[in-house]
Amino acid sequence: MKDDNCIFCKLANGDIPTTTIFEDGDFRVIPDAGPASFGHLLIIPKEHAKDLTELPEETAEKVLPLAARLGRAAKKGLGCDGFNVVVNTGEAAGQTVMHFHTHLIPRYAGGEKIVAWKPGKLEPEKARELAEKLIAEL
Amino acid sequence: MKDDNCIFCKLANGDIPTTTIFEDGDFRVIPDAGPASFGHLLIIPKEHAKDLTELPEETAEKVLPLAARLGRAAKKGLGCDGFNVVVNTGEAAGQTVMHFHTHLIPRYAGGEKIVAWKPGKLEPEKARELAEKLIAEL
Repeated sequence: MKDDNCIFCKLANGDIPTTTIFEDGDFRVIPDAGPASFGHLLIIPKEHAKDLTELPEETAEKVLPLAARLGRAAKKGLGCDGFNVVVNTGEAAGQTVMHFHTHLIPRYAGGEKIVAWKPGKLEPEKARELAEKLIAEL
Repeated sequence: MKDDNCIFCKLANGDIPTTTIFEDGDFRVIPDAGPASFGHLLIIPKEHAKDLTELPEETAEKVLPLAARLGRAAKKGLGCDGFNVVVNTGEAAGQTVMHFHTHLIPRYAGGEKIVAWKPGKLEPEKARELAEKLIAEL
């Protein structure tokens, strides 16, 4: 179902004109308007879902195979050396538009890092606590 | 096929003991040993594939639905406010172990950003160039 107040619903369904890299019955792929690198794409489902936790499973299944296809095309067509695939879920994770989308970000050797963290330590006791808490909810 | 020199083949297939959060015929999910946050997980396929460009489609299809399930469990069980799902493909993208894996990183409100970039601009001419180059390879 489309949400009439959602900019990504409008973009995905062609109600706002945009450069389209790929389109099928489920998705539209467009360039990110504020790209991290040349070739930064957004994979946007046509049907509205707030985020990954609410995305129908049959749509979720199709995202990574499509990202792989686009990433292979980016390596051939743009000459990038690699790419990041990023799904941010929730404001705390940096999601800014509340319509599920996947970033595909080409990376060129020597470019700046866009995914980085200071590695913490996982003590055995914390690992056990983590496993207990997660397994209980799976 | 297993690669006997690959640490993630060994972890995914249980040849090295590890805390297991989830396991099925295709994947093992384990805590990242150098976590970005409490609950940082790795989704690792049991079959060896270097990266997303070489992952069999039938495996790729299963990753995001599993990440959604784990992310929902992390929100309930760990109380995180969101989560990032990240696939790094190639050294230029920060991939350090050359066996496909997906990071699931819980995020807590007020925590540090781990995915960030300075948004560039996409001039109409560059958007056209991008579309031409990518569509030719799709």
